[in-house]
Amino acid sequence: MGKGITSRKENYSQWYNELVVKADLAENSAVRGSMVIKPYGYAIWEKMQAQLDKMFKETGHSNAYFPLFIPKSFFSKEANHVEGFAKECAVVTHYRLKNGENGIEVDENAKLEEELIVRPTSETIIWNTYKNWIQSYRDLPILVNQWANVVRWEMRTRLFLRTAEFLWQEGHTAHATREEAVEEAIKMINIYAEFAQNWLGLPVVIGTKTENERFAGALETYTIEALMQDGKALQSGTSHFLGQNFAKAFDVKFADKNGQLEYVWATSWGVSTRLMGALIMAHSDDNGLVLPPKLAPIQVVIVPIYKGDAQLKDFDEKVDAWLAQFKAKGISVKYDNRDIHKPGFKFAEYELKGVPVRIAIGPRDLEQGTCEIARRDTLEKHVIQQEGLVDYVEKLLIDIQNNIYQKALKHREESNHKVDDFESFKKAIEAGGFVYAHWDGTSETENKIKELTKATIRCIPVDNPQEEGKCVLTGQPSKQRVIFAKAY
Amino acid sequence: MGKGITSRKENYSQWYNELVVKADLAENSAVRGSMVIKPYGYAIWEKMQAQLDKMFKETGHSNAYFPLFIPKSFFSKEANHVEGFAKECAVVTHYRLKNGENGIEVDENAKLEEELIVRPTSETIIWNTYKNWIQSYRDLPILVNQWANVVRWEMRTRLFLRTAEFLWQEGHTAHATREEAVEEAIKMINIYAEFAQNWLGLPVVIGTKTENERFAGALETYTIEALMQDGKALQSGTSHFLGQNFAKAFDVKFADKNGQLEYVWATSWGVSTRLMGALIMAHSDDNGLVLPPKLAPIQVVIVPIYKGDAQLKDFDEKVDAWLAQFKAKGISVKYDNRDIHKPGFKFAEYELKGVPVRIAIGPRDLEQGTCEIARRDTLEKHVIQQEGLVDYVEKLLIDIQNNIYQKALKHREESNHKVDDFESFKKAIEAGGFVYAHWDGTSETENKIKELTKATIRCIPVDNPQEEGKCVLTGQPSKQRVIFAKAY
Repeated sequence: MGKGITSRKENYSQWYNELVVKADLAENSAVRGSMVIKPYGYAIWEKMQAQLDKMFKETGHSNAYFPLFIPKSFFSKEANHVEGFAKECAVVTHYRLKNGENGIEVDENAKLEEELIVRPTSETIIWNTYKNWIQSYRDLPILVNQWANVVRWEMRTRLFLRTAEFLWQEGHTAHATREEAVEEAIKMINIYAEFAQNWLGLPVVIGTKTENERFAGALETYTIEALMQDGKALQSGTSHFLGQNFAKAFDVKFADKNGQLEYVWATSWGVSTRLMGALIMAHSDDNGLVLPPKLAPIQVVIVPIYKGDAQLKDFDEKVDAWLAQFKAKGISVKYDNRDIHKPGFKFAEYELKGVPVRIAIGPRDLEQGTCEIARRDTLEKHVIQQEGLVDYVEKLLIDIQNNIYQKALKHREESNHKVDDFESFKKAIEAGGFVYAHWDGTSETENKIKELTKATIRCIPVDNPQEEGKCVLTGQPSKQRVIFAKAY
Repeated sequence: MGKGITSRKENYSQWYNELVVKADLAENSAVRGSMVIKPYGYAIWEKMQAQLDKMFKETGHSNAYFPLFIPKSFFSKEANHVEGFAKECAVVTHYRLKNGENGIEVDENAKLEEELIVRPTSETIIWNTYKNWIQSYRDLPILVNQWANVVRWEMRTRLFLRTAEFLWQEGHTAHATREEAVEEAIKMINIYAEFAQNWLGLPVVIGTKTENERFAGALETYTIEALMQDGKALQSGTSHFLGQNFAKAFDVKFADKNGQLEYVWATSWGVSTRLMGALIMAHSDDNGLVLPPKLAPIQVVIVPIYKGDAQLKDFDEKVDAWLAQFKAKGISVKYDNRDIHKPGFKFAEYELKGVPVRIAIGPRDLEQGTCEIARRDTLEKHVIQQEGLVDYVEKLLIDIQNNIYQKALKHREESNHKVDDFESFKKAIEAGGFVYAHWDGTSETENKIKELTKATIRCIPVDNPQEEGKCVLTGQPSKQRVIFAKAY
């Protein structure tokens, strides 16, 4: 138990909170609900950003930047949208401070005529802008993404999972046809799924949300749902088909090839620093973080076991050559020859931080041309020849990336339950995991189930097998199972 | 005059405003003083970010993220700092909207106990955080950078140059000694200078600010000052030695090697989307943007001059091979074979957008194995053999990068004036450029000169030659000339 983290079994929630802080990923700030993302945590987020950004650009998207503030009147234009976000908005009302009787005060003479909302999401300000960008079908599609901070005044916050301010990307696209917009929304949820699986090592189910769980203003919300080690689901990314809702709210029309004016079709899609929470909770253990190599800021650490400076020199020479070879392969490596800490301390430290591969080398290794390799995911150690070390580690990193994914997949498969009556349903939900059950399709039933069990419908999987069945609560006829789970 | 931009001679200020919008870089948003950075403009900013980020990392800095909001009480802790920023702060006072009689209203039941300031800069929230990160000399130095948006409620705004919200990076470092902090501040201003010169093609003078012009809370502000084509200066980046001011305001002490408690020494440094303004104003001409190749989103454009689809095929085949070769060299190239626009229209478009090299190829070129090359910086055209085209263009891009810098340098050198009496001073300031004059070292004189001429002291150059002289206004003795200019 590196630095004495609470074990998952003892208290999963506390384990998570402690791990985030002790592994130097993030901490609570002095501002209620806002976090500080520390350099080590931010380095992981940067790796996520770089890969996602590459995938967005490869699919024809460009980045742009829109204002942080949204005039209240814009915000109110799409009825469902404002309904969904009004209760958790940070509102700017003044633009100046002054020296008052009790020190620095808000200057009441500097009150805004119209209040500004700190963006919780940018559909409204962006569609107000698109109005000027779109006249003809030639201006379409618009495929734009924004990397930004957003604010939602959540009452109960948790580092990465739910914070008042968070970082994310939000794609906002405009299309000439319904079909093209739907295709875009699906394309992007697939990109998120690919990213989750190949980079985060996180198996996900792709599906659509029920009307209850849909994004405020969307006609359809596609989601990727992942399962955490404690059996709770985590929504990891969403992509929305917005229909013509925002085009109508902001009067955005285009002339088609026949000169006919039509409203524009829209999508939006986003993932956020919440993915950091998914990453941590999906793979880590009681010793600390377990990071997939593709996202690890340090992929390999080399720790010499030595006495005195004279001995260290021999190590330094040997290791310098390895460092160059690792670098040449694009593998990020750290050589920790600090003398202020003992090897055991360093081992625990890098375990806590989730470094995928640790190489230890002692005086006997120097003589015998060997070294000890420890892999973080399985905690296995073995001694290998120094000859071919770098190639060996390169393959090992690929192996670890795969193994992390397979382990999470196995956990999820083992946590799938099919149930057909409400007693079994309740037990399955209590046990955790994805519960596949029939549902009569009404919001009423969905709400009732949530009330009774705290479980929500995570999604209706795409390509869901159709089968006759009866709703697990009401017994009404149903044509397919949907996924229920408790969720973050 | 691409798309009919006002010429620089006619109205420099209008030329700039029109160019920013017509070249698709940015536009004013519906939110007072906030801009929308359009994809083409953002692509340039991304290139700047990538290079700066690389330079920061190579000098040992890591990125992190701190809250957007700063509690009012923190903001007030450093007296000079709050004095400097209080008059232009966006203030969040409420955290909820509600459905009221007149539609969506601010919910007065959701008033914050303490107002939050939208960060105009992050020293206060960061030093409040560093307090928990620093106990011992072993925790130092801290070398952290943040890429973020900030808000300063400017009354007169201009796209990129002065906007209520802008994007920037802010480095915040903590050190055990004064010497180390000063060294860091100087190191970073040198990095900015290197970036300006080698990437923006922008010659800059490195110097220190006078007390009047110093950052609010700094003991010393280092600056890079560039000269625009209209003879006005533009402060392009600053690096501040903050002494122990913020450490004292937030009580941040460390135990040195002897266990003695000392206040920590600080720096901060930043560049912003203002650099976009500098880039545009330094190099562009009456036809549109002139971009240095290293920052151009499209470095080379290829335009075929053809009639009918059958002919186009021959061009496509030829050009496809080139595209692969350009890509292999990491040169970004666009092949514009759209049939909806004529070549002349495309030429004007890419001139407006500042694409450094244009290759045009017509039917006779196909027969003769030639093509026409136009370089954007000099507007020169010449016909070359297709053989060796890609190597030729690769060298040309380097040449253009250098030429842009040399041209700007020549303009600045020609705009340097040394003056020794106030009449000449006033004339020189009116003429534009950097005016080197003696100054008696008092804020009073500095203010008086500003009042009389609108000129400010841009900086006291580092390694400034020392010479006896008399203040250009008061005749008081002075030991060095400083640089005066009107500035953006």
